[in-house]
Amino acid sequence: MALQKKYGIEELISLTKKDMGLVNDLIIQRTISNTDMIPKVSQYLISSGGKRLRPMLTIASSKLCECKNNYYIPLAAGVEFMHTATLLHDDVVDDSEMRRGKIAARMLWGNEASVLVGDYLLGEAFKMMVEAQSIKALEVLSNAATVIAEGEVMQLVYSNHLTITPEMYFQIINYKTAKLFSAASEIGAIISDSSKETAQILRDFGSYLGIAFQLSDDALDYTSTIDNIGKDIGDDFFEGKVTYPIIVSYKKSNKEEKKLWERLINKKNKNANDFKSALELIDKKKGFEKTLAEAKKYGEKALNCLENFEKSEMKSALEEAVYFSYTRDS
Amino acid sequence: MALQKKYGIEELISLTKKDMGLVNDLIIQRTISNTDMIPKVSQYLISSGGKRLRPMLTIASSKLCECKNNYYIPLAAGVEFMHTATLLHDDVVDDSEMRRGKIAARMLWGNEASVLVGDYLLGEAFKMMVEAQSIKALEVLSNAATVIAEGEVMQLVYSNHLTITPEMYFQIINYKTAKLFSAASEIGAIISDSSKETAQILRDFGSYLGIAFQLSDDALDYTSTIDNIGKDIGDDFFEGKVTYPIIVSYKKSNKEEKKLWERLINKKNKNANDFKSALELIDKKKGFEKTLAEAKKYGEKALNCLENFEKSEMKSALEEAVYFSYTRDS
Repeated sequence: MALQKKYGIEELISLTKKDMGLVNDLIIQRTISNTDMIPKVSQYLISSGGKRLRPMLTIASSKLCECKNNYYIPLAAGVEFMHTATLLHDDVVDDSEMRRGKIAARMLWGNEASVLVGDYLLGEAFKMMVEAQSIKALEVLSNAATVIAEGEVMQLVYSNHLTITPEMYFQIINYKTAKLFSAASEIGAIISDSSKETAQILRDFGSYLGIAFQLSDDALDYTSTIDNIGKDIGDDFFEGKVTYPIIVSYKKSNKEEKKLWERLINKKNKNANDFKSALELIDKKKGFEKTLAEAKKYGEKALNCLENFEKSEMKSALEEAVYFSYTRDS
Repeated sequence: MALQKKYGIEELISLTKKDMGLVNDLIIQRTISNTDMIPKVSQYLISSGGKRLRPMLTIASSKLCECKNNYYIPLAAGVEFMHTATLLHDDVVDDSEMRRGKIAARMLWGNEASVLVGDYLLGEAFKMMVEAQSIKALEVLSNAATVIAEGEVMQLVYSNHLTITPEMYFQIINYKTAKLFSAASEIGAIISDSSKETAQILRDFGSYLGIAFQLSDDALDYTSTIDNIGKDIGDDFFEGKVTYPIIVSYKKSNKEEKKLWERLINKKNKNANDFKSALELIDKKKGFEKTLAEAKKYGEKALNCLENFEKSEMKSALEEAVYFSYTRDS
């Protein structure tokens, strides 16, 4: 897929810069504890430079809704903490060795610390969210917390299942990823006292964006380089996660190729050659193109949602972020 | 310590029976998910018969405060879910093989499932707590969530530290155990719209009760039988947890005994003989008596708090529960 222009999130970063400064201060401040290990583990992960898309979404949607208060600041920080907590726990669940281009926290401080510091951050997330004093926003966010965990459990249950249906795959990514994008966007409307319709539009917007983002993430897990994506390439494959590129390839495989897939996925200690075989099998069946085409489809749904808002710099920045979500290489 | 009478929580159970029925229904209902593994793991642990002291405290304190609404039901269920989530995570952190007399969930479904189902239950806990519509109660409970995790991290950091001060030990048990007892009691006052003073009294009551409970738990970990306490005896010792009985013994040890303690605690694969030696060293220095005397001291502080309330059946039941907390053998 040759692209004329390379899209990015620079506009979104620039327009949310001042508020993100406050969010980042709050994040640092709220990892401080009498127990050294908590700021150490939290800040190690937090300072390792994720995109911080989720808190930016909360700020951006609050701005789209002409929010008159500052409650989106603790809410945005809470959303990022919730995300960080799930990353710490995911690394334990997946036995990951790398995260954001650095050695995973659990490799340095142990699984125990990752579990407990994750719990601490989840608690702090709720504390900050409670400070925003909105029961409605808390409803959305506490619901997101359970749905994310449910998605992670589903993913665990369906690991190594080549026959997973596309519907189940979409449910998993909707739960584990899109739900927090969706909640992060929706609470911007809630905190601004916007109409139910606007809240629904932003909820859908976040959801579609999250799905587009996860689909391209699943493609990048095979096609990126470690410098770009900052985690091990092939993680999904080695962990037995059957993502969309495999689903497409398996479905279009002939009997022999299906057998090869089964051998590859069920092999206990997968190696680099197995990964290469998987890559070839996906490529042969245009698994990456189909995955990115799906991502684009969801990206376009997200863009449609934005059509409900007046022209503004923030709206353009969000549109760019949507293009980025399905054309990105990092 | 020969006791004239054996105290229990039967009165508390009997007086909260109807409400606990509703709480238990809600608990079962809220573990239902499309993902089989979630109800399976949750109900395995939930049905294994913990005492459910914490939700009973929420109900009892609501009754003491003459609560006029039913919001204590979802709050009590939320408190129990929060507790269950920490048990699932603790077992992963401690590599425990038993819990409540049954094989630990993580031994049956893996650490991954215990981490994720714990996260799910924590999310559901917040959802239920949000349903009670009280920002103040949410403040108390979200704060408890972080403090509990902080206590668990401290405990991890201080494992195998024989020189841990009694102050640090008390901070750890205050954080990891007493905080939830305290929050569970305080929210009864909050939800009943009681005065700040009453909320403070119940907060203190729960806190003292929790400390008494944990101190006797730490003694029971050495002196009980598996039939009574339902988890491995000596867990604390084998996990390198330096609890009050050891702190007392180590402090009163001579040079030679201190060396023996160091050898025992720093040994990587502790065996039954090591546990026997530890038991003897504690017994020799009256470590258990001192621990139970401390428990009694905190129990009496809890009883003092109750003096602020008029005579009632519920008050008597709580007094019995306090006696139980420091005289129990299970």
